[in-house]
Parts: sequence; structure tokens; C-alpha cells
Amino acid sequence: MNYKMMGRFLSQILAIEGLFMLPALAISLYGGEAMAVRGFLVTLGVILLLAAVLRILCSGAPSAFYAKEGLVCVGLSWLALSVVGCLPFYISREIPAFVDCFFETVSGFTTTGSSILTDVEALSRGLLYWRSFSHWLGGMGVLVFLLAFTPGDSKGAGFTMHLLRAESPGPDVGKLVPKMRKTAAILYIIYIVLTAINIVLLRLGGMNLFESVCHAFGTAGTGGFGVKADSFGSYSPYLQNVTTVFMALFGVNFSCYYLLLMGRFKSVFKDEELRLYVGVILASTVLIVLNLRGFYGSLEETVRHAAFQVSSIITTTGYATTDFDLWPSFSKTILLCLMVIGASAGSTGGGLKVGRVLLLLKGLRRNIRQTLNPRKVQLVRSNGQVVDERVLGNTNAYLAAYVIILFSVFAIISLDNFSVGTNFSAVLACFNNIGPGLEAVGPACNFSIYSPLSKLALSLAMLAGRLEIFPILVLFSKSTWTRS
Amino acid sequence: MNYKMMGRFLSQILAIEGLFMLPALAISLYGGEAMAVRGFLVTLGVILLLAAVLRILCSGAPSAFYAKEGLVCVGLSWLALSVVGCLPFYISREIPAFVDCFFETVSGFTTTGSSILTDVEALSRGLLYWRSFSHWLGGMGVLVFLLAFTPGDSKGAGFTMHLLRAESPGPDVGKLVPKMRKTAAILYIIYIVLTAINIVLLRLGGMNLFESVCHAFGTAGTGGFGVKADSFGSYSPYLQNVTTVFMALFGVNFSCYYLLLMGRFKSVFKDEELRLYVGVILASTVLIVLNLRGFYGSLEETVRHAAFQVSSIITTTGYATTDFDLWPSFSKTILLCLMVIGASAGSTGGGLKVGRVLLLLKGLRRNIRQTLNPRKVQLVRSNGQVVDERVLGNTNAYLAAYVIILFSVFAIISLDNFSVGTNFSAVLACFNNIGPGLEAVGPACNFSIYSPLSKLALSLAMLAGRLEIFPILVLFSKSTWTRS
Repeated sequence: MNYKMMGRFLSQILAIEGLFMLPALAISLYGGEAMAVRGFLVTLGVILLLAAVLRILCSGAPSAFYAKEGLVCVGLSWLALSVVGCLPFYISREIPAFVDCFFETVSGFTTTGSSILTDVEALSRGLLYWRSFSHWLGGMGVLVFLLAFTPGDSKGAGFTMHLLRAESPGPDVGKLVPKMRKTAAILYIIYIVLTAINIVLLRLGGMNLFESVCHAFGTAGTGGFGVKADSFGSYSPYLQNVTTVFMALFGVNFSCYYLLLMGRFKSVFKDEELRLYVGVILASTVLIVLNLRGFYGSLEETVRHAAFQVSSIITTTGYATTDFDLWPSFSKTILLCLMVIGASAGSTGGGLKVGRVLLLLKGLRRNIRQTLNPRKVQLVRSNGQVVDERVLGNTNAYLAAYVIILFSVFAIISLDNFSVGTNFSAVLACFNNIGPGLEAVGPACNFSIYSPLSKLALSLAMLAGRLEIFPILVLFSKSTWTRS
Repeated sequence: MNYKMMGRFLSQILAIEGLFMLPALAISLYGGEAMAVRGFLVTLGVILLLAAVLRILCSGAPSAFYAKEGLVCVGLSWLALSVVGCLPFYISREIPAFVDCFFETVSGFTTTGSSILTDVEALSRGLLYWRSFSHWLGGMGVLVFLLAFTPGDSKGAGFTMHLLRAESPGPDVGKLVPKMRKTAAILYIIYIVLTAINIVLLRLGGMNLFESVCHAFGTAGTGGFGVKADSFGSYSPYLQNVTTVFMALFGVNFSCYYLLLMGRFKSVFKDEELRLYVGVILASTVLIVLNLRGFYGSLEETVRHAAFQVSSIITTTGYATTDFDLWPSFSKTILLCLMVIGASAGSTGGGLKVGRVLLLLKGLRRNIRQTLNPRKVQLVRSNGQVVDERVLGNTNAYLAAYVIILFSVFAIISLDNFSVGTNFSAVLACFNNIGPGLEAVGPACNFSIYSPLSKLALSLAMLAGRLEIFPILVLFSKSTWTRS
């Protein structure tokens, strides 16, 4: 294991985190929030110390870097980011228990949006900003940010590739593999521009600057932390609709935007994942609208709430305009299914990913055909290209890992003795990085009901969900820490 | 498609079903149950007519027979068995609605044991016997019975193999593929002997002959239909413990018994699936006993109920000695996990199967190792032998199909607006051929609450679960019915 390079990298990650804490500190200073200021300053001190020590200890690292180290590095980085990132909440005493601070921060960086806060409006503005910003940073990936915007350093191509592979959502990095560093920068710029447009549109609807920025961060990262107790419930229909559209936009594979920029409209229009993603959104909205007949006063209201919730859940954002736990069972089950499907690969959203579901369906169809005609070789194609058997195998293994983790965490948190619906939806909501679940963890409730053990298990589930399982599994795998 | 051979086969299957209806008819005659007698007689008339017509229409069938036809044949046979087998309930008017008769019969043949009866004790003895016997026949498979005990006829080896493959539970027919016909006969004889021992042991505990036979059928087939409203709740601890042991025995891969008969004790003792199966049963029982502290009066009672329920659920039998829906959440979640895992491959039980779970785990471990050391070829071994990549691929595809069907049926039945816990456990209970679920379909309740549409969806889920998905998927697949 190339510990020195990993340590060096960790020191850079922490430095970036510290840098990004400065705007939050400024907001706290401006608002005169003394405890929050103290929280940020102490944390910055810790970061400086840690980064310096790591830098000194890990000088002269060899440049060879392998897939295994990439996975470990990503897993450790995200753990470190979360532990350090939760210090302002803890030191300011705005969230008293450390496990709650950790849960809230992991929920932020993994863009989950589940909260243990019983009264979000009581939090100071500096911390509210930091909480929302963690969504934005976690959405596209902080490691990607580092690789995109820092000079090449001594790091080899293997380093960049393995880290990007490990941090980017989806079954395959696909079309964007070559020129990774440049591509990462372009993706981040698209991300920044879309976020800015979102802020402007929210401002035009009369939302104040602070709330616009926080909500745009939560939307862009498909996170779901808001600044109000009723999430988006009290905002105007215009603001709700803008958010519906932008959540859906951030759930699209970003390589589609890249291709649009290149003028390749046809290949975007023909993209199978994009088509399925749009199809699922439209179909789910229609089904829920039909199921909700008579639930709201007007058709406009029904469509608005249905579309908002569908867009919020499939992109794994987790904002809500209404308490969908009160909806009829069929609508709730549609939402649970969307939780599992998740957003597109290569977007900021979580879940299994539409692209992976597509591959699973195609693999299954191939398997049936193979059984029916054993002598004919059957290939799986995606967007006209033959899919490598290894990608198919990985996709299938991913599903197996997904199911195993799902049921393991489900068993652990059921020790707290809540209902099956509460526990099952809580795991789905955390593991798929969505936010609210159903029943006792529904959109009108929060995760403070759970014991520290359950909060820890759910935090790990959030990390496993965001990093697509393997970097976290590898951290706990014996063969990672033994020579081979 | 070799329709003629399929028709010929179907006529034989129906004839066997008619033959097996005779004991039930005798019981009804003996008890003077006029309506039930009428039900059986009319059904026998229908069977005679159908079998004769099929026999005449399908003479002179070509002998070539392929995998595709094997799957279709198995799927159609089970549908036909269920439609014809439910006629006695319908014609006798003991169950008024046809969809209820169909649900109950599918539940019988698929060894599920879910019931729509609100008062099982009101059913006549002839029909109770027929209901329990359907478990016994469905457990080992009626097609296997036919192949084992009828002379070779003109059917080729391909015919036998494809049918056995399609009807036998588990990822791979494995060690028993050669000499299939003889092996099938040996397995059936083991099955009959074990059932007989079970009947004797129940008799020794003071259970009357009728109930002993019915319960032994339900235990052997891992079905779960009983003759009392409280299932096994009112029987003595001795009778409960005997049933605990026999349920567990019928959840073992029958090839283990075969190997025991051959004197190959060592390979049975070292069998990885058997070890995992026993391990899961013991671990689950211990965890539930710990979780149930103080729930029952004594430790003996706690262990007895825990072991009974674990054995009942993992083998997908579904008998109950207590209303486990009242247990704390953790114990209920353990049971839900056991529902998914299911019994051993090559047993009469349902679920994913322990052997398949083992392969999924090994495949996942291989995948992680492959990621860590991309240049080393990693093989998956089972009982020391390298597992064919095709078997691994099929296992993964199976999981994908499993998850997709699970969520589809979940969505359909949620139209009836029951709770998430009710609906989710209902799908798990039917799809894995278990019987009772939780909440409104818990062991103290029944499935009569659902709408006809839901009952139909759950019936198809039971068939898909029992036949391991593919024969049912193939029936609904376009490419089955088009030339290729």
C-alpha cells in the first residue's frame, strides 16, 4: 500500500475542506453567531494541524498507485471529510451529541439529506450554509474537484483514473475516460453554471439570497437539506416547479450536457439511459396523479405535488412539498421503487442508477434468450455498442452487494423496535442517499428517533451508497490490509 | 415448438392429478360430505375428458425436445394443475369465488401455504386432505413424479433433462444429473420414507391419523397448510418440536440424503451449503431468543417458539406456534431476512436458496478481489470444485429477476392501500412460498383482505417462486412464441 501518497492526498483534501469552510465562517461572523464562529475557527485549526502533520510525515511518496489504493483512498477521504466536517456542529454545541453531528455531516456529503434535527430553523445561518454546501461539494465529488482544479503534481495517470473511477457514480465511466483531468474540469464548470442559473431563477421568484443559495446547493447535489421545517411546502408554486425541473436536470448523466456542448444533439437524444430516465419520471408522475384523484383541491395542485415528489425521490434529493406519507399505499410504493432505481449514472444522484437498472434488464433478457436458444451467442448492447462482459459481471455483483447491505442494515436498525415500514424505508432512504422515508421517518419527521448504533449503521449505509459500495466494502475487507 | 409432445405430457399430468384425487374422494365419501363428493366427481369427469381429448389430438409427436419447450411445458403444466386442482373447492361451493379457489390451490401446489380462508376448520375433511396433499405433491414436483415412476415411453433424454432442470429448485442440478430418471425415483422414495416417519412420530405424540397425515404433507412439502385456525399453537410441545426438526430436515438438499445412503458421510459433512444452512438456523434462533428475553414465561418456551418459527420460515413452510407479528421488530426483521434466503437448493423449500446466496457471496468476494488485483485470474469454488462462469451468471441474473418481480408485485398489490409492512411481507411470503407475512397478513390473519387483482398477482408470484422464475417469465416472453 502506498500509504505516503494516500496521506499526502488526504492532507490536500482536508486543506480544500478548510478553504470551503471560509464562506461559512464569514456568514457566521457577519451574523454575529459567536458559538458558530468558535466552531469554525477551532475546526480550521484542527485542519491546519492535521494537514501539516500529514504533509510532513508523507513526503517522498513513490508514484506507483493501484486500483486497490484508489478505493481505500476514496473511502478514507470521505470518512475524514465527514469526521472533520462535523466538528463545527459539535464544537458550537448547536448539535450536542457527536454521533448526531457525524450523521448530519455524512448525510450532507453523501447528498442524502436525512436529518436528526427536530428544529432546523433553530440552527445558525453559518451552520445552515455549511450544511447545504456539503451537499454541493459531495454531489460532484470533492476528490474530482481536487483533481480537476489543482496542477498535475507528481501524481501519475493511474492515480487520477483510479480515484475518479472510485468516486464517480454509475456502472462505467464510459465515454469520458480519456483526458480525465480536463473532462473533470469541464463537468465541474457545467455544474457551477447550472447551480448559478438555479440561484437566479429562485431569486426571480422572490426567494431571498441566502435561501436561494442553500436550496440551489441542495438541488444541485441532489441532497435535500433545506432551511425550513416544512422543506418546500410553504414556497410558491413557481419556486416549487423551478425546483422540480432542476432536480430532474441534476439527475441526468452529466456526459449528456458535455455532449450537448460539443453539439452532438443526436447522440444525446438517442441515449438509452436518458430515455428510460425521462420515461420513468413521466410514467410515475402519471400513475401517482391517477392514484391521487380527489386528494388535493385541483388538478394543477395534484400534478405539481406528484411531479415534485417524483423528481425529488428518483434523483434522490429528498425535498418535499407535501407529506407524502399520507398518500395512498400505491403512490408510496411507487416512491419506494423510485428510491431503489435512483438517478442516472454520472449524475449527482444516488440509488442503483438508471443505467445499471438498464444493464440488469438487458442482462436478464439475454439470459432468457440464452436459455431458450443455448447454441446462439447472445451479446448485450448499450447505445448500439457491445457491453463488456466484465461490466455486466460487475453490475450483477453490485446488485448482490446492494441487497446484502440493505438487509444487514435493516436488521441492525430494527433493534430499535420501530415498524417494518419505518425501518425498511429508513434504510432505503439512507442507502440510496434520498433523505426522508415513510411513517416515523417520513417527510414530516426526522431520524432523531434512532439509537446511536442505528445512526452509525445508517451513516455507513449513506457512505456505501454514495461511493457505490466498493470503496467502503474494501475498507472492511481483510485482503485489503494483507499483502498479496 | 413441439406442441404435440407438450399436449401428450399435459394429458399424463392431468391423469396423475386425477389419480391422486381418489383418496380425497374416498375421505369425502366416508365422511358423507355430499357437496365435496360432487366437487371431486365433476372434476374427475373434466380431467378424463381433457386428458382424452389431448391424447387424441396430440398423437404422433416428434421426439425432438429443447430447453425452451421444457420451460414452457413446466409453466403450462403447473398452471393446468392449479386450474383443474381448484375445481373441487369451486364446484363444492366450499370456497365461493373462483379467484379464491385458484389462489388457495396455487398456494397448495407451490407449497406456499398462504390462505384466503377465514375459518379453515369449516372446510370438509376431503377438501382439507386435498389441500394438504397438494403441498406434498408440489414439494418434490409432480413432473418429477411422473418421470420417476412411469416407463420411458418415446421420450428422449433431452425431454427428461429439460423438464427436471426446469422444475427442480436450486442454481444447478449438480451431482445428480447423470441417470436422472433413476435418481428422481430414489429421491421420491427418500421423500416418502421421511414423510412416513414424520406421520409415525406425530401419531406417537397423540395426534389423530387425519391430522398427522395432513400435517406431515404440509411439513414434507414445506407448505404450511394446517387444519386448525391457530396452526400449531394448540399442539403439545413434543408435537411442535417434532415438526421443528422435520421442517428443518425437509429444507436440506435431498442429494445429501442420497449421499448418506451411498455411505459418503464425509462429503455430506463437508457440504458448504449444508453448513451454512445449519449455521443460519442456529444463529437466527440464538439472536431471536436473546431478543425475546421476557416475552415468554420460561426459557424452554422461548427457545421452542424461536426454533419453530425459524425452522418454519427459513424452510418456507409457514406453520406457526405463536403470533410472531407481536414479536419485537428485530426478531421480525430476522424472519424477513430468512424469508428471502429460503431453504437449501434441491430441497422442497423456496426462497432464493442457501446455495444461491452462497454463490452470490462468493461471486461478490471474487469481484472485490478482482478489483483489488486486476491482473490475477480469480475463480469461484464450491465444495472445492471450480464453479462454471455460466452458473455464476445465471445466479446473478436470477437475483435481478427476483428483485424486479418483487418490486413489481409489491407495486400492484399496494393498490389495495394496506400498509407497507403488510404489502411487502405479503409479497415476500408468497414469492418465497412461505405463507404468513406480517401485520394484516400475519400468522393470525389471512389473505382474504386482498382484491381479486392482488390475489391473481400473488398467485403468479407464488408460481414464479416455486418454479424459480424462468418457466413463468418464459410463458410471458415474446420470443417464446415466435420462431427463431
